[in-house]
Amino acid sequence: MFRATLLGTGGMLPLKRRALASAMLSVNGRHLLIDCGEGTQVQVRECGLRFKPIDAILITHFHGDHISGLPGLLLSMGNQGREAPLLLAGPPGLESVVNHLRVIAPDLPFALRFHEIDPRAPQPFVAAGLTVSPFALQHALPCLGYRAELPRPGRFLPERARENGVPVALWSALQRQPEASLNGVTYTRDQVLTPPRRGISVVYATDTRPVDAIADMARDCDLLIAEGMFGDPEKLPRARESGHMLMEEAAALAARAGARRLWLTHFSPAMPEPEAWLDRARALYPGAVIGQDGMTVDLPFVD
Amino acid sequence: MFRATLLGTGGMLPLKRRALASAMLSVNGRHLLIDCGEGTQVQVRECGLRFKPIDAILITHFHGDHISGLPGLLLSMGNQGREAPLLLAGPPGLESVVNHLRVIAPDLPFALRFHEIDPRAPQPFVAAGLTVSPFALQHALPCLGYRAELPRPGRFLPERARENGVPVALWSALQRQPEASLNGVTYTRDQVLTPPRRGISVVYATDTRPVDAIADMARDCDLLIAEGMFGDPEKLPRARESGHMLMEEAAALAARAGARRLWLTHFSPAMPEPEAWLDRARALYPGAVIGQDGMTVDLPFVD
Repeated sequence: MFRATLLGTGGMLPLKRRALASAMLSVNGRHLLIDCGEGTQVQVRECGLRFKPIDAILITHFHGDHISGLPGLLLSMGNQGREAPLLLAGPPGLESVVNHLRVIAPDLPFALRFHEIDPRAPQPFVAAGLTVSPFALQHALPCLGYRAELPRPGRFLPERARENGVPVALWSALQRQPEASLNGVTYTRDQVLTPPRRGISVVYATDTRPVDAIADMARDCDLLIAEGMFGDPEKLPRARESGHMLMEEAAALAARAGARRLWLTHFSPAMPEPEAWLDRARALYPGAVIGQDGMTVDLPFVD
Repeated sequence: MFRATLLGTGGMLPLKRRALASAMLSVNGRHLLIDCGEGTQVQVRECGLRFKPIDAILITHFHGDHISGLPGLLLSMGNQGREAPLLLAGPPGLESVVNHLRVIAPDLPFALRFHEIDPRAPQPFVAAGLTVSPFALQHALPCLGYRAELPRPGRFLPERARENGVPVALWSALQRQPEASLNGVTYTRDQVLTPPRRGISVVYATDTRPVDAIADMARDCDLLIAEGMFGDPEKLPRARESGHMLMEEAAALAARAGARRLWLTHFSPAMPEPEAWLDRARALYPGAVIGQDGMTVDLPFVD
């Protein structure tokens, strides 16, 4: 089960019904948090999630609304008895920023492991069982988008296994692992499985102008979570100046990418009703959805 | 008008209806914030208050639940165009702690002025037009309580002014300022006024064992805001160990001090219904009130 939960949909300023930027991806009991603005830990609990099983936290950039909730969350993870190391990934400088914020969370019962990503040459890595592919966005600060994918192995074909002479005793193992050996002979997964099937992928891109990389990374994804900071097209100069997107710019990217779902998020506090501008986004991407705190979807494998 | 607003009543962990520790004192358009846990800026807006006119922020101590909302609040004050310097007062180390947290709020359009208070020899100071008297509490970290008082000058007595030969031209000035001169002769306020009358005072004391200083400082105050971290008397060993108070310990202090009102706050997240223990507190101080986020009272002058 791959569940995506939008924890906070606010940009800049937290509001009563809009915690700041944050989303959780939950797969098979493992959890990946993306961004951690003020109010994230409240939303984690409100959404029926827990702190302790968070495997990793990805930070897009170091503006306060994307990381201000981190020291409090770390404290709460510690208070709940977490001992397992926690992976934190984000732009260069992450370790220093987090260590500064830890002035109010100096004693944690678990280790932090930092993974700083060079936006000029971002490399995929594995977190919470997902393949995470970071990519550079265009904002006032170095800012990363993330594609998180649950890979899906190929289908098991007994006739293929027989054709390749794979002993029956290894059929089960080769459905779980890349290689297995018997009597000194090593067999590989591709001898019993079809090529890998389409996985499930979610792309998260906030605080950016609508760069090509978003459409490229969101190609055929199951869910694109993208900022719609502004709705009114008259705000385009402001969006350009501050490195943000209009809702319709996000919709155009989703359409271009062939994303299967689009959730708009990171709304300006000066826009109390993003719904007022939804028609403009839907003219470009009919399935566009205004994100709300706590919105959740279970994403199935699709053949 | 002296208004006290309890912004957040949570201890340790923010909950949906319990922001972390924070209270605002508002007097004649000036505002004094005490503590700034996560969720404070949401509550400021929910309570119809604004960021920009906050004159000063008092921090009790550096546990995350009392200061985690500060960098976000500073950012929001800046985003709203504040330019006036902001006074921050708290225990020694305040400037360093705040500067670490400002890693995510490096560029503010206003200056911060720091006032670090020695808990061993705390001295009164003026903030937001109030006389603030800090005092040492007993917690795991150096922790300060605060008494904030709106002084009230004596009553104007024309007969006293005449007896003291104060020219009529100075009567008005001497009701507003300590001295005034005419024709080379200086007159003082006490020549036209009775001695100062009882002012309005609020005492804030959280994260502490029930030390004598609280009863001393809360003597005859209009409102004591005190922590009631735990209700169940079986939690007394835990309260002792962690430097917190039971609700009934706070009530005993309020009774001893002759405080006119008592609001309990800073509730353990493991205590969803503090009301369950209110009777025990009311047995000692009948007017004890369970604080709620957004609770407010207008405190009048009392002769």
